[in-house]
Amino acid sequence: MQAPRHLVSIDDLSIGEVQTLFEHADRFAAAPREFSDTCRGMIAASLFFEPSTRTRLSFESAMLRLGGGVLTAADMRSSSSAKGESLADTIRVVGGGYADVIVLRHSSEGAARLAAQYSPVPVINAGDGAHEHPTQTLCDLYNLHVERGKIEGLEVVLAGDLKYSRTVHSFVYALARFGANIICTPQPGFELPEYVVQRVREEFGVAPVRADVRRLGDLANESDAVYLTPQKPHQLSLFTDLSDWEVQSVDAVYMTRPQTERLENQEGGYGQYMRIQKSSMAADSLRDAVVMHPLPRRDEISEEIDNDPRSIYFKQAARGVPIRMALLASLMGKIDMGTPSGEGHRESWPVAEGENPCPNPACISRTEPRHVTPMFTLQSRTPLRAHCAYCSRELIYSYVGCSTSKHYHKPDSSGLGRISADHLVFLPDEGSAEALQYSPAGR
Amino acid sequence: MQAPRHLVSIDDLSIGEVQTLFEHADRFAAAPREFSDTCRGMIAASLFFEPSTRTRLSFESAMLRLGGGVLTAADMRSSSSAKGESLADTIRVVGGGYADVIVLRHSSEGAARLAAQYSPVPVINAGDGAHEHPTQTLCDLYNLHVERGKIEGLEVVLAGDLKYSRTVHSFVYALARFGANIICTPQPGFELPEYVVQRVREEFGVAPVRADVRRLGDLANESDAVYLTPQKPHQLSLFTDLSDWEVQSVDAVYMTRPQTERLENQEGGYGQYMRIQKSSMAADSLRDAVVMHPLPRRDEISEEIDNDPRSIYFKQAARGVPIRMALLASLMGKIDMGTPSGEGHRESWPVAEGENPCPNPACISRTEPRHVTPMFTLQSRTPLRAHCAYCSRELIYSYVGCSTSKHYHKPDSSGLGRISADHLVFLPDEGSAEALQYSPAGR
Amino acid sequence: MQAPRHLVSIDDLSIGEVQTLFEHADRFAAAPREFSDTCRGMIAASLFFEPSTRTRLSFESAMLRLGGGVLTAADMRSSSSAKGESLADTIRVVGGGYADVIVLRHSSEGAARLAAQYSPVPVINAGDGAHEHPTQTLCDLYNLHVERGKIEGLEVVLAGDLKYSRTVHSFVYALARFGANIICTPQPGFELPEYVVQRVREEFGVAPVRADVRRLGDLANESDAVYLTPQKPHQLSLFTDLSDWEVQSVDAVYMTRPQTERLENQEGGYGQYMRIQKSSMAADSLRDAVVMHPLPRRDEISEEIDNDPRSIYFKQAARGVPIRMALLASLMGKIDMGTPSGEGHRESWPVAEGENPCPNPACISRTEPRHVTPMFTLQSRTPLRAHCAYCSRELIYSYVGCSTSKHYHKPDSSGLGRISADHLVFLPDEGSAEALQYSPAGR
Repeated sequence: MQAPRHLVSIDDLSIGEVQTLFEHADRFAAAPREFSDTCRGMIAASLFFEPSTRTRLSFESAMLRLGGGVLTAADMRSSSSAKGESLADTIRVVGGGYADVIVLRHSSEGAARLAAQYSPVPVINAGDGAHEHPTQTLCDLYNLHVERGKIEGLEVVLAGDLKYSRTVHSFVYALARFGANIICTPQPGFELPEYVVQRVREEFGVAPVRADVRRLGDLANESDAVYLTPQKPHQLSLFTDLSDWEVQSVDAVYMTRPQTERLENQEGGYGQYMRIQKSSMAADSLRDAVVMHPLPRRDEISEEIDNDPRSIYFKQAARGVPIRMALLASLMGKIDMGTPSGEGHRESWPVAEGENPCPNPACISRTEPRHVTPMFTLQSRTPLRAHCAYCSRELIYSYVGCSTSKHYHKPDSSGLGRISADHLVFLPDEGSAEALQYSPAGR
Repeated sequence: MQAPRHLVSIDDLSIGEVQTLFEHADRFAAAPREFSDTCRGMIAASLFFEPSTRTRLSFESAMLRLGGGVLTAADMRSSSSAKGESLADTIRVVGGGYADVIVLRHSSEGAARLAAQYSPVPVINAGDGAHEHPTQTLCDLYNLHVERGKIEGLEVVLAGDLKYSRTVHSFVYALARFGANIICTPQPGFELPEYVVQRVREEFGVAPVRADVRRLGDLANESDAVYLTPQKPHQLSLFTDLSDWEVQSVDAVYMTRPQTERLENQEGGYGQYMRIQKSSMAADSLRDAVVMHPLPRRDEISEEIDNDPRSIYFKQAARGVPIRMALLASLMGKIDMGTPSGEGHRESWPVAEGENPCPNPACISRTEPRHVTPMFTLQSRTPLRAHCAYCSRELIYSYVGCSTSKHYHKPDSSGLGRISADHLVFLPDEGSAEALQYSPAGR
Repeated sequence: MQAPRHLVSIDDLSIGEVQTLFEHADRFAAAPREFSDTCRGMIAASLFFEPSTRTRLSFESAMLRLGGGVLTAADMRSSSSAKGESLADTIRVVGGGYADVIVLRHSSEGAARLAAQYSPVPVINAGDGAHEHPTQTLCDLYNLHVERGKIEGLEVVLAGDLKYSRTVHSFVYALARFGANIICTPQPGFELPEYVVQRVREEFGVAPVRADVRRLGDLANESDAVYLTPQKPHQLSLFTDLSDWEVQSVDAVYMTRPQTERLENQEGGYGQYMRIQKSSMAADSLRDAVVMHPLPRRDEISEEIDNDPRSIYFKQAARGVPIRMALLASLMGKIDMGTPSGEGHRESWPVAEGENPCPNPACISRTEPRHVTPMFTLQSRTPLRAHCAYCSRELIYSYVGCSTSKHYHKPDSSGLGRISADHLVFLPDEGSAEALQYSPAGR
């Protein structure tokens, strides 16, 4: 049996595959009730270890529209897992014969990656803690495609809490990969984290510039705005002699709600939160901008613009159904996703030995260690920087060893370049190196 | 796109439409498993903000019998709305692409009316607090139709708690509208409220008479019975010289459970509650009476009559499926409900300005004011009496203003008759009138 | 209408019927997605009064694979029954028109038997407290059938907590009935209860022998092993001159988890619980043994053998779907289960009068007495021993009366043999006999 295809991260899809999904979604959106034979006889299982009714209903609607059946476990946390069952076991049972595709929501970061390792059927990540929610990102991109016909070169404003919103971080990576320009107008104090900016710079050659956002009107009044743009040749030229980039015409404003539940320990809170209202949308640069929001919204978008034709946030949610139809049908092999190019994919390796180097207590490798083999991806070789392959958190260590030579190095040692990735060992200190009988390199 | 048709109140259906639904339901009941192509490709979403398993399963069974799909959110309260989403937003998302019809259960009175204002697809009210539950009423009427072949002229006994049971109030309005006669044999202290009697008198010309219920045997022993009958010409004649109407032969006894959960503050409680048992059903006048109950029952119907052929309460529940099949298929346009006559429909208007005049703290206009425009229906012009269009509670105010003339009147002023309904303003006192810069009329 | 066929106990199926179900399940397992017309138009209702996600999903998957629809009430306890509805009423409503088959999980022992008495459609017991879970047993037997081609004569090791596991007791009865040999290697202190051994001896002529389990290696090191084997003629001969039976070659090892939730009052607890690991499976006698587990497992099977081809516990769970497809389709009359032989079936009678003689406080006859007629099955006539027909617990009484002669006897009286079963009355003491106006027999 061929290994199933999963969607754990938006990076699992190449740009070409995403485009193909968009084309299928366009067909489905045009006549949503006419595809009820596409997945007849197939079953999707919604395994939700934390409740998220909107996401669950969107997936289940997509599966029903395709003519498939749906198994729902809307609150797994309080059922099987209460009897002490591991996620890996649950996945092997449900994927072993109950369902043809698993839609997984879990509170541990990296849970979907672990599930994919064990599942005989495709796993779709419907949110793993604060980590990823790739179908939300796919849906957001699809909305830009529908509204603007393309993503490359679009001017997209991100507003609100850019610090804690998982949705925004994933969207930033994806926009950067697809070549859109990003204007950040954060709630003061909730700017895009440095590690997000660093990643888009490293992976997609995106440069941050201070943006002149006067033309955005009251949307950006208090913001310390940043402009992120892919530094491809034809675009670099635009920036050579600019210290500030003046925002001219915006294609989309993407607003996010305050992540109040994440704020427990932050003094002061959000203060007066940003709000898109009629006056905001009067700015000249926003004349053609669509307003997007991943929902649920609270007060950050005034209901007075709900009927403005530029307000597409309800359409945006509705389009989650055809794009999820396309994804489900593709992963189950009922429609063709195109030839995989491998672009986007990030290779990962098992940690050769020693302790689990992931520092994230919410990572599935920490919360359910039993069936987990610690895995990592490489960010750079010199100095050696690696991420946990489950939760994407940067690994923290003082030394790196080689499991064959039994030597250990400092992370910036040039000797590390010669070690095969699957022999790498991450050591918190000399004591643990010696406990594993490693000796310093070059002595 | 044509505006969708909703079922928020039983008044939304004309008598002719109800009859047509009965005919469809008869077809469905005769062969429930043979209509699984009727709604193929369509999806119903059960959005239950409070649990009600029986009602939910009845709707979902109906949708599945029609070959449609079902999205279930059995406890919405603890999910999306916990993230602070308004009902109006939830409805716009679910109705915007997830589902083709929404079945809504909510604890706020008027919630379904609000939902209908925002939904792009039909909304069916599956219970909004203590307000309405129109498909229960439709099911009850359908049972009379099946058992007796008609509703007009039937003699229907209502027994038990007639004060707090929402089901009974709706049933009273519907029976009055359809021309049935009603004999009330309440649990002492739990008589039909005066406002219910007043409404049937005003709207349907129904007169209450003291009833002689000796022939009902122990069913009515302690009751302060009342006979409600439509005063149509041919019937009025029956009553001209009667102070007491003697109940002769009953067509149906409709029993209701004690609404214990509503009784918190009522001293004394129900005491010994009424109970239909074998001896009750021995009364001569009940020889052909069917026994109905909206279920769940507790002790108010003895299990010793469960096998009596007159006990139809389990059949009654079962018939909820074909009548809901008829309703779902009609609202989704898959079968024809006949030509709408408008009869039954009650027009409503937005309150022109000022505070929300609804006095009901459980009304959706109070619990979720954000997306609500206060609306009212007119009960009478002289004196001016109006109901909240959401929860149907009578508005309370001291003065009524006109938003164009900026004058205000006492509710019994003849000047009110000249003001267009959409210019009416309801003012609690002179202070608020002046705050809105209104002056007394005729000065 | 013909009375529906139920599955309350595995005893409701004859050996021939089970074999026929296996054949259907083989067909379904070979092409699970090709039977989606088998039950089109039919509906299964999952009524789960306590959560059990795995069991529920397995049934619902089976129904969806057959093309049927599913109504889910995953937590009935907190819904309708909170309004005080009895199980008998719920079943009559759901079975009266909502669904074509009911899958019932309940915490009271005997709940499914009661439900079957009232349901107009087939009831399948998906677990009634600590009593029965017949589809788990059916699934376990089906796995032996698939892996070994037969059940009769197999050598099956039962390991772990054999005292409290409902699953194991049902499996023991079924293995004995099908003629398999059973080797018990219990967790010390958690041996198979004497009443289980007694029942298989009485009903299936099974003899317990002390087993020599040295060849089982560390699996049985500390166990006080017992060998149970059907004493059919050709096998009896094997045992005539053996006091210890040496286990040679095992076909299956069935491991069970510690039933920690049952242990509250047992001092000491389980101590170090048994664990199947790589070393255990190295024993020569286990070379061809499959490893089974009803799941969820915790530590009693090491993950190091998950990829051993003999570890079939995930396959075992997956095979629950085709066998449940066979069962559902049979009970709904869509496929043929063969001619019933009556073998396996145990007749039951109503208790003629007096108090409910069942001593089990968790029995449905105690927890929901309202709609229950006490019923019993006869275990022996001399002395008279009887079981509650709901929970199978042995009745406890001092005297047995006859409701026609109004005499009472001691349970070992020979006079009891002449009393018709439906005239039997079970009396706790002389006082209650006299209260019912019974006099001692033979005076």
